[in-house]
Amino acid sequence: MVTPKNIYLFTNPLYKDSFDPNSKSLLLKITSRDNPLTKQLHYVLQIEHIKSVGFEEENLTVSEFTKLQKDGIDFIPDTLSHLRIKKSHDEIQRIKSVCKLTDIVFEEFVKQTIEPGITEVNLATRLEKIALEKNASFSFPAIVAFGKNAAIPHHHSGETKLKKNDLILIDFGLKKDNYCSDMTRTFFIGKPTEEQKKAYAVVLESQQVAVQQCNNVTMKQSTSVSAKNIDKAVRDYITSHNFPTIPHSLGHGIGLEVHEAPSLSPHSEDKLTEGMVFSIEPGIYLPGKFGIRIEDLYTIQNGNLTKLTNSKSDLTVL
Amino acid sequence: MVTPKNIYLFTNPLYKDSFDPNSKSLLLKITSRDNPLTKQLHYVLQIEHIKSVGFEEENLTVSEFTKLQKDGIDFIPDTLSHLRIKKSHDEIQRIKSVCKLTDIVFEEFVKQTIEPGITEVNLATRLEKIALEKNASFSFPAIVAFGKNAAIPHHHSGETKLKKNDLILIDFGLKKDNYCSDMTRTFFIGKPTEEQKKAYAVVLESQQVAVQQCNNVTMKQSTSVSAKNIDKAVRDYITSHNFPTIPHSLGHGIGLEVHEAPSLSPHSEDKLTEGMVFSIEPGIYLPGKFGIRIEDLYTIQNGNLTKLTNSKSDLTVL
Repeated sequence: MVTPKNIYLFTNPLYKDSFDPNSKSLLLKITSRDNPLTKQLHYVLQIEHIKSVGFEEENLTVSEFTKLQKDGIDFIPDTLSHLRIKKSHDEIQRIKSVCKLTDIVFEEFVKQTIEPGITEVNLATRLEKIALEKNASFSFPAIVAFGKNAAIPHHHSGETKLKKNDLILIDFGLKKDNYCSDMTRTFFIGKPTEEQKKAYAVVLESQQVAVQQCNNVTMKQSTSVSAKNIDKAVRDYITSHNFPTIPHSLGHGIGLEVHEAPSLSPHSEDKLTEGMVFSIEPGIYLPGKFGIRIEDLYTIQNGNLTKLTNSKSDLTVL
Repeated sequence: MVTPKNIYLFTNPLYKDSFDPNSKSLLLKITSRDNPLTKQLHYVLQIEHIKSVGFEEENLTVSEFTKLQKDGIDFIPDTLSHLRIKKSHDEIQRIKSVCKLTDIVFEEFVKQTIEPGITEVNLATRLEKIALEKNASFSFPAIVAFGKNAAIPHHHSGETKLKKNDLILIDFGLKKDNYCSDMTRTFFIGKPTEEQKKAYAVVLESQQVAVQQCNNVTMKQSTSVSAKNIDKAVRDYITSHNFPTIPHSLGHGIGLEVHEAPSLSPHSEDKLTEGMVFSIEPGIYLPGKFGIRIEDLYTIQNGNLTKLTNSKSDLTVL
């Protein structure tokens, strides 16, 4: 809990020896059955004369919240979710670092031969092993989808076997130093069809539409970009080529969590501005046939849009 | 949502192609911006004349709950957490299967040479790779703790290097077919001290005290065992040997989640009975020196306590 005077960390005795007792930046409070979190928290609020407390309503369960409530204290939801929307220089450095690692892991991954017959789960495991060797963990279970499974945007990798002339969609993110990455690539084993080639080109171009929209606005003059306008420009581009619109958001903020503010979506109220880090991930999904998605992370630094994931995204046939 | 008439599954369009449209066991309802979860759920409650809804307060965020609330509908917390306390035959089979795999992974793990100099993270990675090869994932990040780090019950594996004559505590669980396992072993690299040998023996014996307590009660006559009494018997055994009491619960239920009902702890109201699956995990922790924990999973089937994890737990020097 952060108050005007102090930063408190409440924890149970199991974790107390993990902390430096000489820490000057935070006050450690050990909870127990006789002196539980609720009691200690209310005591701190009382002695610091605090009447209103913001909280992360997305990260507090009903069970936890029920215990915390008390007469005379006003718990205010939806106050904190946007506190992390702009990243500090140090945070951006960490995200850059995990993105660089993501590129390295992916490069090593595509160097290995991918044979028809391998399953989605096998391939996800192969990717995970490479990440493990680099001391990084996945920020979410990797999505590996073959052929028509790629038309399901959040496909759960399964026992489907790779066929000749199949397409592979891989969406994965790493976590290092508490910060997350997220990247998607779609590539071909054998020859893509004309329709696949066209869809791939449109997805790649539509990502550039978003990049141009960000750059068109002169961010150097501190003007921000409306996230929903970028989302719309990309959708319009895709549908103008007679493909269906994206069944998900164009993008999302990322940092300590894989999905956080801002949101690049049709009804978003967010403006993209200095210090934000977000994905741009257009996709075309043709149910029963195939799906193509290309996702990269970007940040706005010194008024410029900077790409953070730099794995090759031209149409690739392995 | 389970009603007297139907089982509904609400999901957004991203996942709709993952489901078998011919499923007879559940009704799939696709949510959208214009027809969101809340609206559809309230509609179902209305047409089925339902006024009271139980929910998992441990698994619903304040944000989600706030959206669901509606005048005229009574949301009742704490109604469902004990619904899963007794497992079906099929569930126990799945847990047996993931426990067997846990033994196999651990056996393979201890076969490999563990050299001084290796870090906790390296060793956790080695374990994770073996699990990956068996197509299992971790149900929680493995705890690998060397020497005095083992005195922190929930130590976060770090860059500590293994020294000669160190002790290693490994607490890990796998997940397969949606069911979890959980097991802890403590073993020695080089020669244990007399104090370590004594503590190890007491931990192992105290686990047997719990087993005997379960068996003493004639479960065949459908009598259940009070969980807090077992917890107390084990604590008393440990403290009677002049070691500090366990700073955590003696054990916890396990199934779809790593921690679920019942709880084997001093203030538990749970009774252990037919169909329950739970851990028995006594430990002795001497801060700044070392920690020892031995954890196994058990179930009560046909009136008998059955051990589900069967990796060797005699004092082992590698």
